[in-house]
Amino acid sequence: MQQFGVIGLSVMGKNLALNIRNHGYSVSGFSIDKSEVDAFAKYEDDKLKPCYTWEEFVNSLEKPRKILIQIMAGDPVDQTLQKLLPLLDKGDILIDGGNSNFHDTTRRFEEMEKHGIHFIGMGVSGGEEGALNGPALMPGGDEEAYKKVAPILEAIAAKTPEGRPCVSYIGPSSSGHYVKMVHNGIEYAIIQEFSEVYDILRKIASKSDDEMSAIFDKWNQGLVHAYLTEITANVLKQKDNLTQDHVIDHILNVASYKGTGNWMLEDGVALGAPINVVAEAVIARFMSKATTREGKEIVWNGDVPDNLIDNLEKSLQLTQAVAYAQGFQQLTMAAKAYDWNLRYPAIAQNWEAGCIIRSSMLKDIEKAYEDGKQLEVLFQDPYFNQLMVNNIPALREVVSLVTKAGIPTPALSASLNYLESIFDPSLPANLIQGQRDYFGAHTYLRNDREGTFHTEWYEEK
Amino acid sequence: MQQFGVIGLSVMGKNLALNIRNHGYSVSGFSIDKSEVDAFAKYEDDKLKPCYTWEEFVNSLEKPRKILIQIMAGDPVDQTLQKLLPLLDKGDILIDGGNSNFHDTTRRFEEMEKHGIHFIGMGVSGGEEGALNGPALMPGGDEEAYKKVAPILEAIAAKTPEGRPCVSYIGPSSSGHYVKMVHNGIEYAIIQEFSEVYDILRKIASKSDDEMSAIFDKWNQGLVHAYLTEITANVLKQKDNLTQDHVIDHILNVASYKGTGNWMLEDGVALGAPINVVAEAVIARFMSKATTREGKEIVWNGDVPDNLIDNLEKSLQLTQAVAYAQGFQQLTMAAKAYDWNLRYPAIAQNWEAGCIIRSSMLKDIEKAYEDGKQLEVLFQDPYFNQLMVNNIPALREVVSLVTKAGIPTPALSASLNYLESIFDPSLPANLIQGQRDYFGAHTYLRNDREGTFHTEWYEEK
Repeated sequence: MQQFGVIGLSVMGKNLALNIRNHGYSVSGFSIDKSEVDAFAKYEDDKLKPCYTWEEFVNSLEKPRKILIQIMAGDPVDQTLQKLLPLLDKGDILIDGGNSNFHDTTRRFEEMEKHGIHFIGMGVSGGEEGALNGPALMPGGDEEAYKKVAPILEAIAAKTPEGRPCVSYIGPSSSGHYVKMVHNGIEYAIIQEFSEVYDILRKIASKSDDEMSAIFDKWNQGLVHAYLTEITANVLKQKDNLTQDHVIDHILNVASYKGTGNWMLEDGVALGAPINVVAEAVIARFMSKATTREGKEIVWNGDVPDNLIDNLEKSLQLTQAVAYAQGFQQLTMAAKAYDWNLRYPAIAQNWEAGCIIRSSMLKDIEKAYEDGKQLEVLFQDPYFNQLMVNNIPALREVVSLVTKAGIPTPALSASLNYLESIFDPSLPANLIQGQRDYFGAHTYLRNDREGTFHTEWYEEK
Repeated sequence: MQQFGVIGLSVMGKNLALNIRNHGYSVSGFSIDKSEVDAFAKYEDDKLKPCYTWEEFVNSLEKPRKILIQIMAGDPVDQTLQKLLPLLDKGDILIDGGNSNFHDTTRRFEEMEKHGIHFIGMGVSGGEEGALNGPALMPGGDEEAYKKVAPILEAIAAKTPEGRPCVSYIGPSSSGHYVKMVHNGIEYAIIQEFSEVYDILRKIASKSDDEMSAIFDKWNQGLVHAYLTEITANVLKQKDNLTQDHVIDHILNVASYKGTGNWMLEDGVALGAPINVVAEAVIARFMSKATTREGKEIVWNGDVPDNLIDNLEKSLQLTQAVAYAQGFQQLTMAAKAYDWNLRYPAIAQNWEAGCIIRSSMLKDIEKAYEDGKQLEVLFQDPYFNQLMVNNIPALREVVSLVTKAGIPTPALSASLNYLESIFDPSLPANLIQGQRDYFGAHTYLRNDREGTFHTEWYEEK
């Protein structure tokens, strides 16, 4: 009998199965696409078994069965559950490793629970390469069921620099997929920040692709040690095999998206989470499609400040922290709204290796939340507060400069506005409340006494 | 027999019924709340009839019946439809005048259509006072049915300065409620812009409440002739009857919301509409609740530029235009996605009086879209393009100044970033696409040839 099963053998499912086998566990693989099973069968050995029917697959697994479903999110997952359900026994464990919407996972978790089946919604990050050699995993669902699959997941997961696995129990119900959604929203935000810094480097500092690559490479050894810094350096120096130019100059500047960042924004709006950088990053992708391109390219004729590169490095470090901060702020609000007991240090640890947003800063975030520390915002933590104090002058200088130059920087601007707002005791929302009471009798609270108030507003007739 | 019926007699329903009666039409009123009918009965005359039962109400109306449902959005509307359905005849016309979510209206429209009942989802703006003396109305649904109620709606609606009614057929299905939702999203954006300008006036220009009131009053005679400018002036000069201070200084700076602005953002995200100012305005309300208030109030010790007040007036004029532009951009995308033939000049006209976002600028928007002109963005219109060219230097100066001062201006910053982006041929989304292809093999398009491409990215191992 096999110890683990994988349904769906396209590149992610196949690589995860191989990863499991490579760690000494026996694994069965099945797909409704026969050609995928044929390809998988080439790896067959005493620990790896290809299956061609649902029955063969399910019956090959020891009980309680542990099955990873690694297929396209949406209807296919429901169809798979319907196929599996009559073949399973109570106590079996299903893991959905796709990018499922957390609302779907909540529904499936409850549905499966009724049948005595444990359903684990698990975020997986790291792409093909991570799937094979160590992904970041974010599993949510029943904790007892998680414990039964934990040894396998810990074996295959990426490891932090200290050797700890990038997987741990996230929380109940759909919290695992929720955390993956937030990972992706943070990813949208940081990627947008990189693209804006790149835009400033080329348009204001007039740096060549190779020069920019070297700058990002240096930053990756400096303040912004992160996977996305590393790959930005690599993307910028890559030559194009069609033109021999740098490929970056031939990539169309219209951003695509699969929508998981949008989901974070949608739920952020439902929760009232102040995630304006994620919003601007999502919308910047829309804008890249919507721009009419009728204007002229920016040519900067002003001075290039001596400290521009340093300021950009500090700005990127700080705005990366803002992206993480907004992610954790939304997680905090979601935990409250959905009654999840989330372990923030474990979430930070899960992201420290294997995933797209991995960076050395996540270790500092882990520390900020350790010992059950509750933070409304990350910048209440002394380390991050000091980072803000140290770097915000640089970010202000950068935003001021691009404002003069006419270069759009929606994510950098939004990061700065977020930082200027979170501790501000005197935001001007009193005027909003006054206007709302004026035109709609919506009432207001006061800063000097309890209760709800309405003014009979003076009107010139 | 009565010509028109109103269900729901709280202040909005009662005032709309009185408005209808005041224009010579006979009207029946009904509510499930007997006390509301009792209050309504005080206005009884030969044209105004209070009804205490569903049957009495429905049977009092001439056929085809024309019934306005003016109650709380949500379940109560569905319950009302279920109560009414057995009592109605084919061809009767129901108008939902509440702030219903357009998805609900789509469903109800289709459900009622099956029963041969015409369902009109109608946005109503203008509050209590507008309901009595002239609201802005945004009706969508079956056009033939609309024609039967048009004389009454045109009679009661607000009138533009030229005397045209602020009501016209918007389009099919839920398009009327959609347009009202967009109205409210624009309202959130403009209100946030006002609050930021107020914040700059008090914190940088050190203006008193009365001085600020005078400034907004002057702007209302100048570049920003709008209802919201007028009421901002009035709110700022209002004295508090509890303290004798200006009331604005005692209103708690935490903004509330009922969520219709949030709905616009949600659907904007679904459509891919680049409505970043609406997003920032919605999120700024969240932020006003989320701020930890641990910081210090901004004290500006720098120079106050001589042209600051002029720059703020120009900035407010331009950012108001951006708010409208984003609203119309989303409407354009919704029309395409939902297959609605929307008449943009009529929508602008509907908003020219009676509603919260009324301003003289809407006349210019009406002209921009006249003769079936299609615009991707409002700023392609020569008038608004010139407005952008004229005023963007002022907005840049303002954003640059507040950036130095550390005052958050999420909506002004977002407006500027929107304007800098919409015509930009060289947004840096090529880096986003390069990164996505690097870490996820998501492929990219090129700017020099057709097709979809993937690069085998160089990686240092």
